[in-house]
Amino acid sequence: MLDPVLNTANLSRDDLLRMRHNEAGCFNDLPAHVWPRSAQRLDDGTVTIAGVPLPDIAAEYGTPVMVVDEDDFRSRCRDMVRAYGKPENVHYASKAFLTTHIARWVNEEGLSLDVASENELLIALHAGFPAERITVHGNNKPDSFLRRCVREGVGEVVIDSHQELEELERIAGEEGTVQEVFIRVKPGVEAHTHEFIATSHEDQKFGLSLVSGSAYRAAVAASEADNIQLTGLHCHVGSQVFDAEGFKLAAARVLGLYAQIYRELGLELGYLDLGGGYGIAYTNEEQPLAVDDVAKDLLKAVAEKADELGITPPEVIVEPGRAIAGPAAVTVYSVGTVKDVHVTDEATRRYIAVDGGMSDNIRTALYGADYDARVVNRLTDGTPQATRMVGAHCESGDILINNALWPDDIASGDLIALAATGAYCYSMASNYNCFGRPAVVSVKDGVVTPMVRRETVEDILAREVL
Amino acid sequence: MLDPVLNTANLSRDDLLRMRHNEAGCFNDLPAHVWPRSAQRLDDGTVTIAGVPLPDIAAEYGTPVMVVDEDDFRSRCRDMVRAYGKPENVHYASKAFLTTHIARWVNEEGLSLDVASENELLIALHAGFPAERITVHGNNKPDSFLRRCVREGVGEVVIDSHQELEELERIAGEEGTVQEVFIRVKPGVEAHTHEFIATSHEDQKFGLSLVSGSAYRAAVAASEADNIQLTGLHCHVGSQVFDAEGFKLAAARVLGLYAQIYRELGLELGYLDLGGGYGIAYTNEEQPLAVDDVAKDLLKAVAEKADELGITPPEVIVEPGRAIAGPAAVTVYSVGTVKDVHVTDEATRRYIAVDGGMSDNIRTALYGADYDARVVNRLTDGTPQATRMVGAHCESGDILINNALWPDDIASGDLIALAATGAYCYSMASNYNCFGRPAVVSVKDGVVTPMVRRETVEDILAREVL
Repeated sequence: MLDPVLNTANLSRDDLLRMRHNEAGCFNDLPAHVWPRSAQRLDDGTVTIAGVPLPDIAAEYGTPVMVVDEDDFRSRCRDMVRAYGKPENVHYASKAFLTTHIARWVNEEGLSLDVASENELLIALHAGFPAERITVHGNNKPDSFLRRCVREGVGEVVIDSHQELEELERIAGEEGTVQEVFIRVKPGVEAHTHEFIATSHEDQKFGLSLVSGSAYRAAVAASEADNIQLTGLHCHVGSQVFDAEGFKLAAARVLGLYAQIYRELGLELGYLDLGGGYGIAYTNEEQPLAVDDVAKDLLKAVAEKADELGITPPEVIVEPGRAIAGPAAVTVYSVGTVKDVHVTDEATRRYIAVDGGMSDNIRTALYGADYDARVVNRLTDGTPQATRMVGAHCESGDILINNALWPDDIASGDLIALAATGAYCYSMASNYNCFGRPAVVSVKDGVVTPMVRRETVEDILAREVL
Repeated sequence: MLDPVLNTANLSRDDLLRMRHNEAGCFNDLPAHVWPRSAQRLDDGTVTIAGVPLPDIAAEYGTPVMVVDEDDFRSRCRDMVRAYGKPENVHYASKAFLTTHIARWVNEEGLSLDVASENELLIALHAGFPAERITVHGNNKPDSFLRRCVREGVGEVVIDSHQELEELERIAGEEGTVQEVFIRVKPGVEAHTHEFIATSHEDQKFGLSLVSGSAYRAAVAASEADNIQLTGLHCHVGSQVFDAEGFKLAAARVLGLYAQIYRELGLELGYLDLGGGYGIAYTNEEQPLAVDDVAKDLLKAVAEKADELGITPPEVIVEPGRAIAGPAAVTVYSVGTVKDVHVTDEATRRYIAVDGGMSDNIRTALYGADYDARVVNRLTDGTPQATRMVGAHCESGDILINNALWPDDIASGDLIALAATGAYCYSMASNYNCFGRPAVVSVKDGVVTPMVRRETVEDILAREVL
């Protein structure tokens, strides 16, 4: 007897799917397509990653704590390299998650690195990342940043406006060098999960319009510039994309410009950078993008289109961030308050509050994200209960998982881990409510290596001028 | 001749209102109900706050920089005190914006302080804030935090669950003391701007249900506890509320419980804490909540309801955060890239990119917030142009003002300030794209005082373990 439980009449199809899933006793599973590749649940219920029990990490480092499976991260780098060919044509998008350790892993795997700010560049250089394998993004790069890029000898600057092209030409001239650049093109393709929208215009801040001729005019200007060498075209179609169609349409459109530049300006650029957006599974119900299949499909489409246009196919560059960092990490929280809330006179929702929240993971509040979470210190054996997992912030929107059906035996003191928190969680973390940001550790072959120590109130006070 | 301009056929009524506003040449105005009280535009177009030119601050401290008008902040403390009577019954909600300087100002004005985490408590104590004027909120207070609260002798702990009540009773007993508490009640009233929703249940994480009897049961438990003294009831109806009706309904409902506790338990608690949510004007079109009128209306309603219930009216506590900190600060940015984007074949939108964005102000992306922004280094004299103000982050959702009509003479190098950024901007700031958080300075009587220095890449790297 379930008492109290949210009336199933109030549940969506997704809820019911989950309920069936949980009724089958599967809450103790760790869906392999969502969790780090080395995640395992031992017979006593303890979850390990790379052989390290998560409760041991929680005991030593406190909670919330982020645990990064180094081999998972590296294996996803290799998957991308295998799918796309050359390591240097796979660019890790550092905005997803960047620390010195991570930049080193990416470097050791031979990938290139995308940065989008001077500090991202500085952290990469601090990690010993070779500047020539760094590509620089951004819709508003200050002169000082562009100058630093030129001086450090970055691989490419991705030009986002005519204004930037002029500034970079001047700066590269002043520095007595020639800077290689890509031009970011608005292809008029917006892709999201399994759908894409084809438009002629895009009302967003990035890139130069294909259809208006703005991107071509930038190519002309670049071809005439003394201190700029145009070597590629870039586009980006969206986030959490699960099939190749949107990428293929964008590639075909940008290849048209690529061919025009070849025909009319005599420039054979060499690179077609198709950006990021490769989807990962955040929940058991989702399937991650099939990297090999999409790559094969996409490379074939590029080759065919190039053939149709009578040009040599350019090398294809991709920029995965989430697809590499996302599934590699989990965040472990301690359960605090458990509260049953009357939603209607017949229905109750259980609120499970943990010791983090929107300060360490704003994706649920900001993007309506969903997550897979599991108790990691023991086996659970309860009846499914409509549950919301919330944080400890003083804000009612501080929610981590909006709508789940979880066993009703989860109690204060349990440890819950959210899977797939490697991307856009730590990188967007705040000090809301003056919470210190979590510790971050990596695990590999049974060994824990601290990456970032927990932030203290002393850290928060350290920048105050008193 | 406006070329290119977003076709007015595409504009909403709000847009057209703004267009008329701007066509009247008013873009050089500083709406007094939105900007800090000391803000002025000099004849040469320079905007000053407390007599200090914002361009001077930008030159010395760089951009983005937050500028807090100390006298504005203090004057809003005094407005609240005047409206509600006793300084200690006005609680500044520190989650809106807390630094040591701010805690000192609040203390000097005699207000009480709300904290919702151990670090907020520690920062308040670090500022010399007397513990007995501190009230402690939160839906998930760890034992260690509760123990610290008891040891420091905080004024009240606002109990959010039966579980917390038991824990606090145990901890206060172990510490050999009696802790005063309020109970947070779900009144079944959700207020937003000019509307409120009256329900019997509330599907959110805070508080104990009035209608189910959960809140009353907590009062019974508190009355029977040896180390807890119940002194008040608390409720919170929402955010950005502009009139008294929602507060009045919630007050009436909670007073019913207050009277029941008096009748049945013989406890005369003393305090009715009606929470925060007092609306401020973020744009010229909005009007802030009329503090005096709402207070008068609300206090009268409480007195009448108490009379009807045959009880002595409790003292009313309010918890303004945004209403005190919000209008006191502006954020000054430098304009970088200016780009005209084709939206349709007939319409163009100007994108003005500044050197901050969702890392220093996530409210637009997170809550769909709107802001009033003005050029502060000179007078503008352009034709209205459909404009979007965006940040410098590598994300298309990195928008500060979604839809404005601004003069078309705004150029790279101009300084733009967003008004009313004192609340929930700095407190929610992140290091997204490894951006350092802005410097914060206060201004008063022509003098600039640094409050928080700009965050550097060294600060970001300092917590790494290498």
